[in-house]
Amino acid sequence: MGTIIKELTKVEDAKILLLDSISSLSATELIPLIDCIDRVLASPITAKRDVPHYRRAAMDGYAVQSADIIGASVTNPVMLGLSDDAEQSTCTRVHTGSNVPDSADAVVMIEDTTPIGDMVEIRTQVHPNKHIGCIGEDMTKGELILEAGHLLRPCDVAVIASLGLSEVEVYRKPVVAVIPTGDEVVPRTTSEIPPPGKVLETNGLMVGLYVEKWGGKARYCDIVPDKPKLIEDAIQSNLDADMIILCGGTSVGERDHVPAVVDSLGDILVHGVGLSPGKPTALGIIDNIPVVCMPGYPVAGLVGLFAFARPALRKVGNIPDISDTIIKARMSGKINSKEGYMTYARVILEGNIAHPLMTSGSGVLSSVAKANGFVIIPENVEGYEEGQDVDVVLIE
Amino acid sequence: MGTIIKELTKVEDAKILLLDSISSLSATELIPLIDCIDRVLASPITAKRDVPHYRRAAMDGYAVQSADIIGASVTNPVMLGLSDDAEQSTCTRVHTGSNVPDSADAVVMIEDTTPIGDMVEIRTQVHPNKHIGCIGEDMTKGELILEAGHLLRPCDVAVIASLGLSEVEVYRKPVVAVIPTGDEVVPRTTSEIPPPGKVLETNGLMVGLYVEKWGGKARYCDIVPDKPKLIEDAIQSNLDADMIILCGGTSVGERDHVPAVVDSLGDILVHGVGLSPGKPTALGIIDNIPVVCMPGYPVAGLVGLFAFARPALRKVGNIPDISDTIIKARMSGKINSKEGYMTYARVILEGNIAHPLMTSGSGVLSSVAKANGFVIIPENVEGYEEGQDVDVVLIE
Repeated sequence: MGTIIKELTKVEDAKILLLDSISSLSATELIPLIDCIDRVLASPITAKRDVPHYRRAAMDGYAVQSADIIGASVTNPVMLGLSDDAEQSTCTRVHTGSNVPDSADAVVMIEDTTPIGDMVEIRTQVHPNKHIGCIGEDMTKGELILEAGHLLRPCDVAVIASLGLSEVEVYRKPVVAVIPTGDEVVPRTTSEIPPPGKVLETNGLMVGLYVEKWGGKARYCDIVPDKPKLIEDAIQSNLDADMIILCGGTSVGERDHVPAVVDSLGDILVHGVGLSPGKPTALGIIDNIPVVCMPGYPVAGLVGLFAFARPALRKVGNIPDISDTIIKARMSGKINSKEGYMTYARVILEGNIAHPLMTSGSGVLSSVAKANGFVIIPENVEGYEEGQDVDVVLIE
Repeated sequence: MGTIIKELTKVEDAKILLLDSISSLSATELIPLIDCIDRVLASPITAKRDVPHYRRAAMDGYAVQSADIIGASVTNPVMLGLSDDAEQSTCTRVHTGSNVPDSADAVVMIEDTTPIGDMVEIRTQVHPNKHIGCIGEDMTKGELILEAGHLLRPCDVAVIASLGLSEVEVYRKPVVAVIPTGDEVVPRTTSEIPPPGKVLETNGLMVGLYVEKWGGKARYCDIVPDKPKLIEDAIQSNLDADMIILCGGTSVGERDHVPAVVDSLGDILVHGVGLSPGKPTALGIIDNIPVVCMPGYPVAGLVGLFAFARPALRKVGNIPDISDTIIKARMSGKINSKEGYMTYARVILEGNIAHPLMTSGSGVLSSVAKANGFVIIPENVEGYEEGQDVDVVLIE
């Protein structure tokens, strides 16, 4: 028999209890630039040299000494010799990105010039440095370019590559052991329909795929029956992971042993949260490893995963908190909530209309396949009416 | 000498011209469930069987014949024999998810019962089907569960797995040939600082990484010098790809041959768009393959990539249009725009304040590393003032 849920902890309080007990990983690894998208920088990127490292023409045209063409205009053009190395009053053809010769201090745009034999007619005057990208204009040697903790995007990688780096130091991905539990759960490798009373394992698969999507590395563990000793063994053999997620066995029935086992090995911080669906979620710590115990009912498990496992994974892995995609919408019907519970109501978003999904319960996972968003109703709000404007969090 | 930009096409018009000329891929592949996140379903998923495939107890308790306990209450409990196969007036212990015996038509919650020897005291009456998940309650045999074209999420995969499927048919990922061009561009493998006038290749890397992030498969091609014949050869040898992106050589200078070469092999639909930065972007079609020619200036290229290459890639690959993450913010300073240009202004978002990024031009890629968002200013708006509320599109 599991522990009894005496009182419910508010979602926000439960999350803080869990996050406050988590230490972030410090282990890092060097990886090639091409593999570093969505990884987290572990050490800052500083410019080891100036970019550009030469005076770069910013336009197609002629590099000149600005002093040579003072007063030049359409009606009073100046003729310059065309040469790369003559001593004075000459100009040099340059293209965008070309090196500007030391003898020049500005570039005249091609539109303001006409080559005539060995000479070039210049029809405008320019200030010194006009159309020249100075040394270090993009990045100056020693400048901090990206801070540690930054989540790497393709555009960052281009900047890092322009500094001549081919590898970056990132935090190691957190390894998350995913342990499905339940006497009724059978492996997905079964090719026939399981006998009555048995269901295919799907929660662990879903959790593992979300873990990978959110930046972790999933370790898919075998299904554990509802036996305290076996649950204990499964947890013990995964204490080398950075986080453990158990699916099922978190309620208060005869077969619900998970929270009690976690408590015997470490500490249960929370058992029972004001979350609907998701009330039997339990959160604990064993040997400094966060342990999230998700309800076995798939939708309740999914909501618990979003509410607790995702922020926990991010804290473990030093992964910045990425905003959910939120769409403003108007309810096409009423949605209810339970007082004291933060309610995740599934909706179908069509354009900017959110249709409540009528569903018989948190066991009906297909309701999530049909839904594309949650409307999250705070504890102190009693549902939303038809016509009300709401924020829909996309289920991604 | 490249083609001349005579007039600018509006961004929206240019996008429509490009998208209208694109045929989506029809090739599909069967892949294991575990690999299908962010892939696009090519054929609908229909339930091949009922889920659940047996009458499932929705609560821990006792399965009963509801007729046997009519009138049962706390003050007037009914005693039932505890047996699995007796003929009448018995009940069976069930757990959430258990098979409900054929002899029963409802489940009484454990809280409303007390086992006394071989008998069970039942203290409530129940309706038929109470706390029973009927056969097909979650999914009915033959029911359409997910439509073709759906972008697969972990929760969808769990639903598909619960139907006993281990593979899904998805659209093949579009192969995108990424061709960097430019006499000044040298390979990143160079370990020393390149000589003055030469720059490391970074645009192709950035493009390839975005292609992969957005659901395509990048083919990284060698750098091509600014010679029409070599550009033509590079394009010809990639006409087996599903899309081609060229970086650089799109302007109107002596070395800008890309749009003319594309036009000689197929059709240039657009050269020059009202996009800032990104004006020299060119869009074309060769042998039914969309060809996006991005400016070589990295920020202009990035903006062209977001504005054109991303929607084109999605259309080619049947990938649903995913909303950008948009954050409401207030400008901490003024940002300018050019009339007639859709302007992508880089901002640094701190909380809900957007700081305009002062920058010397579209050649300065580090400005994007510093920025985390774009404020997109429409053609008919003349910039935004300090204090103005704006939508910031996160650069992800």
